[in-house]
Amino acid sequence: MTLEKNTLEQLFAELTDVVGDRFSTNMNSREVHSKDESYHIPKLPDAVIMVHSTEEVSEIVKLCAKYQCPVIPFGAGTSLEGQVIPESGGVSLDFTEMNKILRLSEEDLDVTLQAGVTRRQLATHLRTSGLFFPVDPGADATFGGMAATRASGTNAVRYGTMRENVLGLTVVMADGEIIKTGGRARKSSAGYDLTKLMIGSEGTLGIITELTVRLYGRPEAMAAAVCDFESLEGAVNTVIETVQMGIPVARIEFLDEVQIDAINKYSNLDYPLKPTLFLEFHGTEKGVVEQAQMVGELAAENGGNEFQWSDKEEEKNKLWRARHDAAYACKALRPGAGMWATDVCVPVSRLAECILETRKDIDETGLLSPIVGHVGDGNFHTVMLVDTDNEDEMKTAIAFNERLLARSLAMGGTITGEHGIGTGKMEFLLKEHGPAVNVMKTIKQSLDPLNILNPGKVVAINS
Amino acid sequence: MTLEKNTLEQLFAELTDVVGDRFSTNMNSREVHSKDESYHIPKLPDAVIMVHSTEEVSEIVKLCAKYQCPVIPFGAGTSLEGQVIPESGGVSLDFTEMNKILRLSEEDLDVTLQAGVTRRQLATHLRTSGLFFPVDPGADATFGGMAATRASGTNAVRYGTMRENVLGLTVVMADGEIIKTGGRARKSSAGYDLTKLMIGSEGTLGIITELTVRLYGRPEAMAAAVCDFESLEGAVNTVIETVQMGIPVARIEFLDEVQIDAINKYSNLDYPLKPTLFLEFHGTEKGVVEQAQMVGELAAENGGNEFQWSDKEEEKNKLWRARHDAAYACKALRPGAGMWATDVCVPVSRLAECILETRKDIDETGLLSPIVGHVGDGNFHTVMLVDTDNEDEMKTAIAFNERLLARSLAMGGTITGEHGIGTGKMEFLLKEHGPAVNVMKTIKQSLDPLNILNPGKVVAINS
Repeated sequence: MTLEKNTLEQLFAELTDVVGDRFSTNMNSREVHSKDESYHIPKLPDAVIMVHSTEEVSEIVKLCAKYQCPVIPFGAGTSLEGQVIPESGGVSLDFTEMNKILRLSEEDLDVTLQAGVTRRQLATHLRTSGLFFPVDPGADATFGGMAATRASGTNAVRYGTMRENVLGLTVVMADGEIIKTGGRARKSSAGYDLTKLMIGSEGTLGIITELTVRLYGRPEAMAAAVCDFESLEGAVNTVIETVQMGIPVARIEFLDEVQIDAINKYSNLDYPLKPTLFLEFHGTEKGVVEQAQMVGELAAENGGNEFQWSDKEEEKNKLWRARHDAAYACKALRPGAGMWATDVCVPVSRLAECILETRKDIDETGLLSPIVGHVGDGNFHTVMLVDTDNEDEMKTAIAFNERLLARSLAMGGTITGEHGIGTGKMEFLLKEHGPAVNVMKTIKQSLDPLNILNPGKVVAINS
Repeated sequence: MTLEKNTLEQLFAELTDVVGDRFSTNMNSREVHSKDESYHIPKLPDAVIMVHSTEEVSEIVKLCAKYQCPVIPFGAGTSLEGQVIPESGGVSLDFTEMNKILRLSEEDLDVTLQAGVTRRQLATHLRTSGLFFPVDPGADATFGGMAATRASGTNAVRYGTMRENVLGLTVVMADGEIIKTGGRARKSSAGYDLTKLMIGSEGTLGIITELTVRLYGRPEAMAAAVCDFESLEGAVNTVIETVQMGIPVARIEFLDEVQIDAINKYSNLDYPLKPTLFLEFHGTEKGVVEQAQMVGELAAENGGNEFQWSDKEEEKNKLWRARHDAAYACKALRPGAGMWATDVCVPVSRLAECILETRKDIDETGLLSPIVGHVGDGNFHTVMLVDTDNEDEMKTAIAFNERLLARSLAMGGTITGEHGIGTGKMEFLLKEHGPAVNVMKTIKQSLDPLNILNPGKVVAINS
């Protein structure tokens, strides 16, 4: 879908009438909007617009529909499967200046935001309120992006993902129509769940411009814990038993020996090179002590070594520092290399087996790749450090990734727990969902008949 | 959409080839499948089939598509907005004999069921396992029906609704295609969320034949509490503060004076005729005591009278008996009358105001209607006891219902928290969702172009 130069110029003139100098074809800006944080090959948009309002997005989409020009929403650019890369050119809509916090209700524990608000921006805004938003994918992503990719992260085991925490959306559809989905009620049975349909649709069904999300009261007390294990199974069985017993852990993260080694080197620490769990507990003062003690007992029964825990702020931060540094530590393992983070999610009963087989597989390929995971949900990442210019190495990485996804599917899991499909996992979506992908295509075609909304992502539509 | 007699006979012959004597045009069976538990006017299906398998449902739907005959899924028949009533005739598919529990994983806390399994059937099956399924809409509904109507109930404040607790579905689409949505992984970013699209679609987008749902470990301890308040605001403020403080109450139910009066009369009890909260706490032994004490303090600060609580089984059951008897007590208020249970859900900050205005409104109409609610979510019901043959009374009830829904919308709420749209609330759906209803219609038309799946429900499609 490449537009004629004359058509593009006509469109660009009309877009400039709408947004003035926030429309740009500057090469620098186009390059910034050509890529995300993944290994996927950048592609230039034809133009970039810094959008400021829902109505403006609606006008832009109407014009793009008139000329059948692709529209790609762009937030913080932190996607990991090529979601924001303009596969067929078009106009990249940058939401970072559309970042107002529109309404906050401390009583109802909800907030309405423009799509360009970032996670940290909201956290700062809430600092004095006693409230917090739990979904934390690591990157300082925008809310629009987090919703569009159904992001989650370390807190999901207790607080859920974007799927559970978005109450309502304002969305611009492919014809420019502005709709509101969901609302502020905590639950509703009023019609089809368009909110959930948009969440995870990666900008292919509509463009999210505003969101209402749930907030939580900051817990009275928090505690953190670290424990290394003699075996991976011991660590994972501790996770399974913790979840089964209904102990409401807020975070339960797994790091394998390679990841621990990376952290030790990066942060000059001396954690034992063993499979390790990092935990966080939220609750009352008595409650977090009780939780820590219960998990400590489970860990001991499963061959855990010293279960270190604390509810003191400074001590807690020290305990968790290693986990916080994980991504930087990975990058530092091989300076200059590309970071290919892939992710799968399996039923927790298969998690130990899946991680063990995956570790063995990585080691046999000779790839450098720590494993780190949100194991309370059965979700883990392999973070390959690859020389993207080295064809042989990329072939090895591609083949490993394929085996990992096949392994997850064979164990009743999914090809992505939280990174999404983008362009990176489209061919595997069919393996996971079979004929359901045709239903997805039917929906895509009915809602975006011209295929202008982030074309070439999630499901392939011929146009 | 009424079919010619010849066409119907041809279809019926072909359906009989597929299901044998489980196909019936017996008037008694048709009458059973002509109605639900609501005040909506029954309509006869042309035939009833007791289905036994997904493949069979697929064959049936293919034949019905060939003849453009409506197909209406039927579970326990406990819907409240006419969801199972065959508006344009057609074939009612009864799922009650398709009720196998297919797979249970105690390790992964999930279970896969055929759609005809009922809530109590699963509870009985799980009795020895230490696990439970939390969604409890009151009626002994089937899982297919609960998913199709996005049911919830008393436990939703802690454990969520069907929306949060269904992991995956098997669905027969309008062309007979069998798809699987979601899966067993706790989270996934793999493509559009067809699971959530089907949940709450009331059989209009596909027919749910199997479900995988989450289970929870039964808590180590439970406690129950009852407290009456001098004012409605006191009761509701206790709820708001409990939720804000993140006290993880499992149930928090409100009953107004009229409901308490009904219960006293029905169960020969002597609760004070005041706004009353019923609560349940789940957790560790220490945890439930702590929760009960914390809520007790909040209640006292908000004008609550004696906060009675207990973690002893017998005492607990006694405390909650009144709440369990609520529906029967309502019916007994006016023997022989129809029960019109309507429901709204508002942001909790508006709940006191909404209930107060609603109570005043009811009293001015002269209607008999207790108010009872799942107030932790902002959800409440008015249960009108009406003489459905009395035209004036029905007019009054219809006008009251309209005012109630308008009031909820004006307060940022929804026209239904858990009963759904069916035929009863279709015209109000447009008031709540405006242009988003067109998006719903587009999806309906794309997935069911012949409009054979439960036609005339949720969104109006001309056919």
